[in-house]
Amino acid sequence: MSKINPGNYFEDFEIGQFLRHATPRTVTLGDAALYMALFGPRFAMTSSDEFGRSLGLPGAPIDDLLAFHIVFGKTVPDISLNAVANLGYADCRFLTPVYAGDTLSTSSEVIGLRELSNGQSGIVYVRSTGVNQRHEVVIEYVRWVMVRKRDKAAAARAAVIPELPEAVAARNLAVPAGLDFSNYNCEQAGSPHLWDDYRTGEKIDHVDGMTIEEAEHMMATRLYQNTAKVHFNQYMQNSDKAQRRLVYGGHVISLARALSFNGLANGVKIAAINAGRHVAPCYAGHTIFAWSEILEKAEIPGRKDVGALRVRLFATKDHPCADFPGVTEGGHDPAVILDLDYWLLMGRR
Amino acid sequence: MSKINPGNYFEDFEIGQFLRHATPRTVTLGDAALYMALFGPRFAMTSSDEFGRSLGLPGAPIDDLLAFHIVFGKTVPDISLNAVANLGYADCRFLTPVYAGDTLSTSSEVIGLRELSNGQSGIVYVRSTGVNQRHEVVIEYVRWVMVRKRDKAAAARAAVIPELPEAVAARNLAVPAGLDFSNYNCEQAGSPHLWDDYRTGEKIDHVDGMTIEEAEHMMATRLYQNTAKVHFNQYMQNSDKAQRRLVYGGHVISLARALSFNGLANGVKIAAINAGRHVAPCYAGHTIFAWSEILEKAEIPGRKDVGALRVRLFATKDHPCADFPGVTEGGHDPAVILDLDYWLLMGRR
Amino acid sequence: MSKINPGNYFEDFEIGQFLRHATPRTVTLGDAALYMALFGPRFAMTSSDEFGRSLGLPGAPIDDLLAFHIVFGKTVPDISLNAVANLGYADCRFLTPVYAGDTLSTSSEVIGLRELSNGQSGIVYVRSTGVNQRHEVVIEYVRWVMVRKRDKAAAARAAVIPELPEAVAARNLAVPAGLDFSNYNCEQAGSPHLWDDYRTGEKIDHVDGMTIEEAEHMMATRLYQNTAKVHFNQYMQNSDKAQRRLVYGGHVISLARALSFNGLANGVKIAAINAGRHVAPCYAGHTIFAWSEILEKAEIPGRKDVGALRVRLFATKDHPCADFPGVTEGGHDPAVILDLDYWLLMGRR
Repeated sequence: MSKINPGNYFEDFEIGQFLRHATPRTVTLGDAALYMALFGPRFAMTSSDEFGRSLGLPGAPIDDLLAFHIVFGKTVPDISLNAVANLGYADCRFLTPVYAGDTLSTSSEVIGLRELSNGQSGIVYVRSTGVNQRHEVVIEYVRWVMVRKRDKAAAARAAVIPELPEAVAARNLAVPAGLDFSNYNCEQAGSPHLWDDYRTGEKIDHVDGMTIEEAEHMMATRLYQNTAKVHFNQYMQNSDKAQRRLVYGGHVISLARALSFNGLANGVKIAAINAGRHVAPCYAGHTIFAWSEILEKAEIPGRKDVGALRVRLFATKDHPCADFPGVTEGGHDPAVILDLDYWLLMGRR
Repeated sequence: MSKINPGNYFEDFEIGQFLRHATPRTVTLGDAALYMALFGPRFAMTSSDEFGRSLGLPGAPIDDLLAFHIVFGKTVPDISLNAVANLGYADCRFLTPVYAGDTLSTSSEVIGLRELSNGQSGIVYVRSTGVNQRHEVVIEYVRWVMVRKRDKAAAARAAVIPELPEAVAARNLAVPAGLDFSNYNCEQAGSPHLWDDYRTGEKIDHVDGMTIEEAEHMMATRLYQNTAKVHFNQYMQNSDKAQRRLVYGGHVISLARALSFNGLANGVKIAAINAGRHVAPCYAGHTIFAWSEILEKAEIPGRKDVGALRVRLFATKDHPCADFPGVTEGGHDPAVILDLDYWLLMGRR
Repeated sequence: MSKINPGNYFEDFEIGQFLRHATPRTVTLGDAALYMALFGPRFAMTSSDEFGRSLGLPGAPIDDLLAFHIVFGKTVPDISLNAVANLGYADCRFLTPVYAGDTLSTSSEVIGLRELSNGQSGIVYVRSTGVNQRHEVVIEYVRWVMVRKRDKAAAARAAVIPELPEAVAARNLAVPAGLDFSNYNCEQAGSPHLWDDYRTGEKIDHVDGMTIEEAEHMMATRLYQNTAKVHFNQYMQNSDKAQRRLVYGGHVISLARALSFNGLANGVKIAAINAGRHVAPCYAGHTIFAWSEILEKAEIPGRKDVGALRVRLFATKDHPCADFPGVTEGGHDPAVILDLDYWLLMGRR
């Protein structure tokens, strides 16, 4: 019997199937330092234990996206080793903050299957759940991915397409236990602009750009124990059309989020990801820019200290965002590589 | 109102102005590991908790220059976002050691302003102070930087040029509380040469060379949350004369300091930086070499276990230092990129 | 007297000579995170504190090879600064696990000397021992290295060639105190294949490939405080035949070990290295592949929960291993760069 993990093919998935993914992972201050070195985030709550404590937390939590990437990475060997493309995310909620020393594990349930008409592959929808060592849910999300069929001649199965919310409802956003913005210090955080100061429809060019190196995206992706071959194996990629290693899509999310500090500095906490698409591939050498549009403002029930901003974050490659490149009738602007819809928590006046 | 930080222009600074810089930062063992991976320092006191304890400290302190870069990085968004050039450092003292878990914040006071005769820009002198979570001063230093004017037509202001010491006086050097070299172990530290063995005028070629990669200097500079655009944005730099991302000057200081282990292995602690200039730009691909000249030897009042060496450290690019390239009548040797004058603490016999 | 470490030449070594190497080094969670980012290992025991505790350990130990590289790095300034080539390893045993916070030091004894007939250099055999702060032996091993003579005309000395075991005897393998595989969780570890499932002679292609970047191998090698010039100094290497910085041989060992997860996922602990040779040089840009052959299966006296597998691990460059390139009559396949013979501990049914 082969000792190698061949990954699952489209036929291997069934509705209701439950997968416990391998390799529990203790997150440490070392991971947090690497995340800072790779992306340069400056959000005060995840930068300073003192600032975290001033908000009622035990210290600085681990960056939401670092936790997301680790939870996500565990699903790759079982879900997307034979994937053609990662198509989208939805209904992603950040529930319990992660602290250095926590150990994360991930499981997934298959909630949708749809074979493509060409008979070559199908779309698999999974709801993945990351938990800590106390079995508290840290992050849960749905993603769908195009997976190859092992046997192209196998008969198609009836499609099951899950109903997914267009966005996480504001009332379902979690504010971590103890988190209180009453003593939030704008000066330390680097911006005077609070929830009250943003308006729906407002567009923000985050101005700065960040060039990606091969060593950087590979170090980040290995840190998450994400093993998708396309990111690491140049020898194999030489046979690919692009002849390049592909940058993990999550790398672009993290870069765009770090760039968004310049304009959204007080958006210290991601509460949810409503939808996300990697519109075009990204390679080392590209310089990433980003801009945001405020889609919606929501109050958090029972809270006067904190509100939620629904933000659409676009990342581009080799294209500064002063002209806000987004979606037109013909589809996404060719410079756009990421289109992400998410909820931020931000202090109020 | 724009949510973007536009940075300050020359007109925005006033004598006596006090700036509290954003983003407090907890320094961790993760940062220390990255610093080791990026520069390869081998000074025993910052490498080993056991060695630190043998010198009366609670463990291995964070490398002095890592603390300096973090303290410095915080000043960039307020002081040098619109800078043309970082001109120099002076009167920099390392006062309280930093340990993993400490949280650093920085503030600055404007102490000098001098408009250039071309009316395009001016020189801003600031005294910056980094403190820990107990409000103890960790590092303080003066730097001056050439900053663009927003309005070239604005009238010039009267110049105020601060008086700066040519060097920190030996009597003002701080020996950290508890630090005692009586049990200093030269064998563990990697060299038999102590303070007594160096003589004024002695020149030391540090022999080794270290080539810089783009990923390395960007990871280091992001680790310090230093956001100066020239280091990260190749798309923008394509329009620059050099068409290269500029390496943060502090990166060269750290490389030269790590190289100086071979010749100054027992110089485990930087006590002060008297003066520093980045004489020429540095880009990825350059191989850095370094040499030192002992400028002065000073006793520390009341101490027989430790003395101070004033060292002039030159770094070069693509030029081994066996011929000690430095300053001639025509100025700096074209190979020199860094000219740093600093005080080291070193054990005595 | 020169302050520079000139390194030892062949004439400087004597049989029985004992060298205490410099720079004790506290290993931290930061080092572990960097190791994960650089190599991407997924072995559960070193990834998760919870998993470590389920095996009776106090938490996740530091990766065996990270500890090895740190212990090894300390020997470079005294043993191999003037080395022409690192020829081999033998009789390497991993005795006491390393945990974050432990401080490692290394000493070596010269156990063999053999001058080469060309009079240019000689082979030095050393037994090196890494200990922690409690003076417990962590790792011990023999390596031999070709070292230049200072004076080519110096008379040859009588050769002393140490007797080295072809392999560490299974009865000499150490199982760390407390380590108990009775509750080993295969699902979390990522593979159902235990010691019982492997057979002598079995060959496993580890399938995946990993491309090396300059920044990565330099960061890793500096992390180990390994100062061998060939890895870092491109200016110097421009005069070398290959005109490239040489990748530290241990980097290839770590990459091949990480790749071997896909096929040997439950081999969570290296117990010994029997023999190792770097068959050909490795440079940045190479994509590393690996395959393993099970050479031998051994029971551990008195243990039913754990057994030992003797594995021969080959790494190749730019050559996938489906055809198991190894040794033929003409020597190693030109694609092979590493030939390593080692003992793994793995849980039993």
